[in-house]
Amino acid sequence: MNESSSDARVLLEHLLRPRSIALIGASDDPVKLTGRPIEYLKRFGYQGRILPINPNRETVQGIPAYSSIGAIEGPVDLALLGVSAERTADALRECVAKGVPVAIAYASGFAETGERGAALQAELAEICRESGIRLLGPNCLGLVAARDAVTVTFSSSLDEGDTLPSGPIGFVSQSGAFGTSITSRLRDGGVGVGYYVNTGNEADLDAAELLSVLTAADDVSVLLCYLEGVRDGRRFVDMARAAFAADKPVVAVKVGSSAAGARAVSSHTGSMAGEDAVFDAVARQFGILRVPGVEAMLDTAQLLATGRRMAGPNLTVLSISGGAGVLTTDAAESAGLAVAAWDAHWQARMAQVIPPFGSPVNPIDLTASLISKPDMLARALDVAVEHPGTDALVVVLTNVERGSDAVVSALRDAASRTDKPLVVVWIGGSGRPARALADAGVPTYRDPHRAVAALSALAEYGARPPLPGAPEFDDVDTAAALDVIAKARASGRIRLDELEATKVLAAYGIPMAPAYAAATPDEAALIAQRLMFPVAVKVLSADIGHKSDLDAVKLGLPNSESVASAAHEVLAAAAGASDARVLVQQMARPGQELALGVTNDPVFGPTVLVGSGGVLIELLDDRALALAPLDPATADALIGGLRGARLLDGYRGGARRDRGALAEAMSRLSLLAADLADDIAEIDINPIFVHSEGAGVTGVDALITLTEKGGGHR
Amino acid sequence: MNESSSDARVLLEHLLRPRSIALIGASDDPVKLTGRPIEYLKRFGYQGRILPINPNRETVQGIPAYSSIGAIEGPVDLALLGVSAERTADALRECVAKGVPVAIAYASGFAETGERGAALQAELAEICRESGIRLLGPNCLGLVAARDAVTVTFSSSLDEGDTLPSGPIGFVSQSGAFGTSITSRLRDGGVGVGYYVNTGNEADLDAAELLSVLTAADDVSVLLCYLEGVRDGRRFVDMARAAFAADKPVVAVKVGSSAAGARAVSSHTGSMAGEDAVFDAVARQFGILRVPGVEAMLDTAQLLATGRRMAGPNLTVLSISGGAGVLTTDAAESAGLAVAAWDAHWQARMAQVIPPFGSPVNPIDLTASLISKPDMLARALDVAVEHPGTDALVVVLTNVERGSDAVVSALRDAASRTDKPLVVVWIGGSGRPARALADAGVPTYRDPHRAVAALSALAEYGARPPLPGAPEFDDVDTAAALDVIAKARASGRIRLDELEATKVLAAYGIPMAPAYAAATPDEAALIAQRLMFPVAVKVLSADIGHKSDLDAVKLGLPNSESVASAAHEVLAAAAGASDARVLVQQMARPGQELALGVTNDPVFGPTVLVGSGGVLIELLDDRALALAPLDPATADALIGGLRGARLLDGYRGGARRDRGALAEAMSRLSLLAADLADDIAEIDINPIFVHSEGAGVTGVDALITLTEKGGGHR
Repeated sequence: MNESSSDARVLLEHLLRPRSIALIGASDDPVKLTGRPIEYLKRFGYQGRILPINPNRETVQGIPAYSSIGAIEGPVDLALLGVSAERTADALRECVAKGVPVAIAYASGFAETGERGAALQAELAEICRESGIRLLGPNCLGLVAARDAVTVTFSSSLDEGDTLPSGPIGFVSQSGAFGTSITSRLRDGGVGVGYYVNTGNEADLDAAELLSVLTAADDVSVLLCYLEGVRDGRRFVDMARAAFAADKPVVAVKVGSSAAGARAVSSHTGSMAGEDAVFDAVARQFGILRVPGVEAMLDTAQLLATGRRMAGPNLTVLSISGGAGVLTTDAAESAGLAVAAWDAHWQARMAQVIPPFGSPVNPIDLTASLISKPDMLARALDVAVEHPGTDALVVVLTNVERGSDAVVSALRDAASRTDKPLVVVWIGGSGRPARALADAGVPTYRDPHRAVAALSALAEYGARPPLPGAPEFDDVDTAAALDVIAKARASGRIRLDELEATKVLAAYGIPMAPAYAAATPDEAALIAQRLMFPVAVKVLSADIGHKSDLDAVKLGLPNSESVASAAHEVLAAAAGASDARVLVQQMARPGQELALGVTNDPVFGPTVLVGSGGVLIELLDDRALALAPLDPATADALIGGLRGARLLDGYRGGARRDRGALAEAMSRLSLLAADLADDIAEIDINPIFVHSEGAGVTGVDALITLTEKGGGHR
Repeated sequence: MNESSSDARVLLEHLLRPRSIALIGASDDPVKLTGRPIEYLKRFGYQGRILPINPNRETVQGIPAYSSIGAIEGPVDLALLGVSAERTADALRECVAKGVPVAIAYASGFAETGERGAALQAELAEICRESGIRLLGPNCLGLVAARDAVTVTFSSSLDEGDTLPSGPIGFVSQSGAFGTSITSRLRDGGVGVGYYVNTGNEADLDAAELLSVLTAADDVSVLLCYLEGVRDGRRFVDMARAAFAADKPVVAVKVGSSAAGARAVSSHTGSMAGEDAVFDAVARQFGILRVPGVEAMLDTAQLLATGRRMAGPNLTVLSISGGAGVLTTDAAESAGLAVAAWDAHWQARMAQVIPPFGSPVNPIDLTASLISKPDMLARALDVAVEHPGTDALVVVLTNVERGSDAVVSALRDAASRTDKPLVVVWIGGSGRPARALADAGVPTYRDPHRAVAALSALAEYGARPPLPGAPEFDDVDTAAALDVIAKARASGRIRLDELEATKVLAAYGIPMAPAYAAATPDEAALIAQRLMFPVAVKVLSADIGHKSDLDAVKLGLPNSESVASAAHEVLAAAAGASDARVLVQQMARPGQELALGVTNDPVFGPTVLVGSGGVLIELLDDRALALAPLDPATADALIGGLRGARLLDGYRGGARRDRGALAEAMSRLSLLAADLADDIAEIDINPIFVHSEGAGVTGVDALITLTEKGGGHR
């Protein structure tokens, strides 16, 4: 067993399912923040040992108290540090001394409050690192694990009730306020949250590690997370891979998607958030369902909690009124789902069970007689379930109140006879029947758009691409690439000139237009004769960024004379640069222009990008991003997602382009980015020409910027 | 007073505020469909005369009954026809005989059920046309006018309660089920609907006319409508203009936006729906807020009902937690609103009132001490209201339950001190405080995205463009255009050849590349010499559509010889066409390619379209549409809304293009489309080159198709 799975077992057993809980600083007052956990543990029926620690009292809320954690006999699975920020480190050390494996720190006053708090938090992290104790928090609300009634929290959301409905959802939130709101609303809707954990400042345990723990729990089948930032990209990706492998969907809300939001989140968390676009790409790549907000998360979780899956995007919509069915159809199509008309055979079958004034086409109009004839609804649902194009069923009701019991019963019965998802859109009425339907695994929504958004997420999950594989190329020459980099660093540069960049890319088998350096016009003319005309002449200098601004690029030169003359002009224009030479480059054959790139995200590491070239990339913001490395098939799928992909696929009678070669180049670039992650800060190949099918690609203009530090010698 | 405003007065007084209501076929059983209206009228306290008509009874539900409508003494304002489809026409005739101005027909069994029903419905329409009586329905739920407790409906949504909360909303729905659901949910949320009317099959009165009536009502300030189709485009536009002029926002849900939805709606309503894209364009053009569905309508109506307006798109967000504020900021920015960081001066002012661990930047983090310090919230709200960049305030709360009274009170007070919109996002908790806030004009939402979607609609309303003006050009030669059309019709064609199309467009001053017809290669060469080289030679034939498929277009011909030879080839290629000649056309100067077009919508009439040219129009679906005619300023705004507009405005250092000339050409084209609406079915000018600023535009390839019927002589 490796370390991380051993840690996962410790956390599952001692944090989420502890048999004994010590509460340092426990108050006898059940309303005080440090008194509430005991009151909740008692009220919700926790069966393990409750161990209050309070040197000033014999008992706390009727339970015998200890003077210190060391005074407890027998093991303590979990300790709650209910003390101030200043005293938290000492309390944690006492836990270490006692051999407690996991602790929770409530107190605020740490990194969120400035420098002094940050130092206190660093001390906690150091204790964890040295001793191996694991810590949740500080500045957190704790956790609620419904299975064993582990209510180690001061959240007032537990003020009422005496049972904790459990369920298949495990939820990790970096925000206590958000997490508690979501958890309460899910429970209000009859959807049980088995485990809810708030990670707060994450001095030790972070959201990704806790999600990994929940992925390993046999009573969790849906994972939710609310994130303000990801602390460790690799750990997050490992978690996502594990959840993918276990077929446990992960639904994520992550803030900071807008520029203004990103600005605010970085001031709020004080942490490096990484690019939101990279998180978004990671989510797509590893099958995480990123949803935009509160109700999207509730709605999606409710549907996923049924455990049902969609095999495709096709809905069968059965409605009480034509208009409501059309509204739902509009919403479905705009969410990327399909409501396809049924063929004559199936229409005839449906027509046998619905009223003559209804419509059997899909959306299927059952008319208002649905209320008076629940049997008709039942029979129509049976036909719809049988239809091979039904990946999910949507029943749309409006103001049904009288007669709703029979309708609910027909819906529950139908759900029990199929494992396809069945959801109800109940636009009007009191909303009261929703609970009975939820108990039968039938989510109810009060708005067609919300229902189809949830279904769309489920369909997206069903259609998630396989995890990206590692690219395998046996012709890659990493040493040659590192050699070019080392020489540039030796001359004090972190910016490669175009010839160097071309060499690094060529070392990884990325096709670049042939190019050579020349110091003089005559040398340039000689080189040009060895290439095929026409050629281009560009200034070659690590000092000069925007060559075209300088009039230092000459394209389409047809012969030696024009090359010599162009080289002369270019060298004159670049007179300011100390190292100026010229690059003589063969002009690429024509093709569709695209762009490839690499950036190095501070959280997730190297990413590779493909974008429509020329005017389109900016006009459309048409680009796709993924973590490096990725195999050619995954690269091809990303390319296929571009709007501009149509230009590669024989658009309007044009030539089909060599998309396979582009995917291979992207995969090779991603391998380069991953192999040399410590050295490469940024790569930009723009344009890369995609030639006719079978004729490959040619990169033309390449920029490579190195990291400041570098990877050193290997 | 013209006829339509006199009709509006009749409908307002007799349909919506009747002083006497006759109920034909009234049942003594208050639970039966024909008994419910009387039970509701009594229970909700209608003060006018209730006049049951039932030949078999002395009294109905305790009220003296009449044997027939003719037996009633004194005037009857409104009659409800509570009889079967077969007996409805007779009942309507009795109303006519009695002099009743307005009737409502409940019964189903009309056009929605097939041919026989359609004939019955046509009979009702005929009675209305002949007699002048106005009819709501048939196949409708009737109406509820809260002001006078006019509950002429059998909707079971009135089964409970004894008061009808009124409010500034007037709602017209083509679907009874949808309308009742929305109305009930608005009332449940504390938002009063003053008038709710269901139009059903619209044998006489349609949704647009009823909206016009509500626009004229002094106690209505917000109009809602649910539409499955528009019966009369002109009436709808007139209504929209009136609502615009009265500053009464119209919120519309219209189904059929998707292809599958449009297919279903046309089978459902059995009526010509017109293009959804045209409805969408009309909505934009006339300031109608089209929203996608149920909750979007509820959320927007709730905000509009406060009567507050936004002067711009800028939100100030104050939140109880950093993350929730960021989430709201993300949502706002993705909805097109702005959450701009405050400058140092205003940050300093805010910092004085909020806790030191909060953030004064915007989104403003008030921290959880907001709960314990409602005074702090109040002071922060005052600063936020004063900030000149605050167009609306958003307060974001999570799980506040303890202490919520003081928070609610601070929010209510703040709202009373400003006329800027103040909305609350209350993510967690019970939702109970929402009602108290609604009463104070503070809408509460439980999801940031829903709040900002409503605010975005309000901002869009505030920024709605002026109504399009009529274009005025004094050089238009309508007679010349009609002459070309008449000649084509005389030769049995509804498709103009390119020369004819060019002449029609030129008659309206739309710049087209000069072009002349030639019968032989020699004649073509002669003509070319009078133009400027290079020229193009194309086959000229009304029979041939896709010229380029035929190899019958030769571009860039530099001299007479090449013209003669090209004409020879083109005529040979078109040998099959009986009328083949060649068109010699001057090549247009270079410019940015766009496209202009005209279509004639069956509901709304002629529309004009502008689209990005070349590959972009299809790749981006980058086009904008508007009803004809429109003035150049409105045309320019449409052009500015294209993604490709950036290509006209000096994109990436390119030339600025003559956008003004394009707007003028579009306006001229719209005038042509409107003037010749009876004759023109379709126009396509693709491409039209937009030259450098000041250098105008040149249309190159033009197609015109005429209507089958034509407008006849004028």
